[in-house]
Amino acid sequence: MPQHLRRVAKQPSVQRLPAYLRLIKELRDLGEEAVSTTYLAELLDLQPIIVRKDLSVTGIVGRPRIGYDVGELVAAIETYLGWDQVRDAILVGVGHLGTALLGYHGLDDYRLRVRAAFDTNPALAGQSVHNCPVYPWDTAPSFVSAHGIQLAILTVPASAAQAVADTLAAAGIRAFWNFSPVKLHLPPSVVAHQEDLTAGLGVLSLKLRLLLASEPGE
Amino acid sequence: MPQHLRRVAKQPSVQRLPAYLRLIKELRDLGEEAVSTTYLAELLDLQPIIVRKDLSVTGIVGRPRIGYDVGELVAAIETYLGWDQVRDAILVGVGHLGTALLGYHGLDDYRLRVRAAFDTNPALAGQSVHNCPVYPWDTAPSFVSAHGIQLAILTVPASAAQAVADTLAAAGIRAFWNFSPVKLHLPPSVVAHQEDLTAGLGVLSLKLRLLLASEPGE
Repeated sequence: MPQHLRRVAKQPSVQRLPAYLRLIKELRDLGEEAVSTTYLAELLDLQPIIVRKDLSVTGIVGRPRIGYDVGELVAAIETYLGWDQVRDAILVGVGHLGTALLGYHGLDDYRLRVRAAFDTNPALAGQSVHNCPVYPWDTAPSFVSAHGIQLAILTVPASAAQAVADTLAAAGIRAFWNFSPVKLHLPPSVVAHQEDLTAGLGVLSLKLRLLLASEPGE
Repeated sequence: MPQHLRRVAKQPSVQRLPAYLRLIKELRDLGEEAVSTTYLAELLDLQPIIVRKDLSVTGIVGRPRIGYDVGELVAAIETYLGWDQVRDAILVGVGHLGTALLGYHGLDDYRLRVRAAFDTNPALAGQSVHNCPVYPWDTAPSFVSAHGIQLAILTVPASAAQAVADTLAAAGIRAFWNFSPVKLHLPPSVVAHQEDLTAGLGVLSLKLRLLLASEPGE
């Protein structure tokens, strides 16, 4: 991956933008026209200065004592993240995690449209999971090239992930959202984001340890 | 939550510690005795200086041209995160995401032992999911207090999350690993970590947008 893309991926601010977007859209749906830094900071457990810094990457600045224009801010975050247009995707691996993701409303909110899911289990082919059709895995490459799909969600076992990614990259996939616990080796023309379901457990365990340590012993 | 715990939660370094631990344990299992900063940086797509900074929170420093002692580093990270002893937990909400988590081997690796799962669906009670027994939700409070459980994984629908958390906190739960897309309001004596399954999608979408923008048009 090019160096400037690596740097982007490490920015915690980018990882927080979806949470801001969700909050701000809720305000918009309630008819609010402006939102203050303080309000966002409070709800997201952040310092106000961090909120201002995070949102500044989108190019929008707030006005003193008024805050941000809700409509402008939604548009700016969506444009920055490339969520201003619907993006088609496929999902590979219709196990429990894949099924959970297909039912996750967050994907619609972010204009990700999962057009089809694929699995090697013949019993799943022809089924529909959360309104998404499931097809045999060996038809995935032709589906990807026929529909010009660029993004794939991988919820396959670790042992299968690299082979699946190689096949899909050859068929035209440019971005992998990888939930398999294995780091993918990909050509420079393809990007990936590795999910780690246990990263949050580290934070929580540490908080619990510090909490218990701060209490008087019995 | 006390201020010093809030600050901890925002540290990206803490969020990366589980990934370091996984890699270093793999090396240990292969019989390696030392690991270099450069090696860890390469595999995790980070700058070497970030690796040194991340690992310094555990109190361990590497030696020039040798690197870190693998055994010491495993012990230091585990102690720092409070993973040096087995921690009992329960899981509430045995839908697809809950089932996927119960089958996730990462939990064992981090000494989290899910003793029981709970669900309001009577058809699930008495079943065993990935070797974890499932009981009726209304028996959860007595299980928590009888076994002194401190950590709960929440994979319930958003509409149920706050009520479930209130009930469990009253029964003695001190830490919530919350996969429901809702921010919990909890007393100061309880900590939580909110998972956001879509945070990674923002990073990936931005990478894909920058990748495509860096290519010559057709």
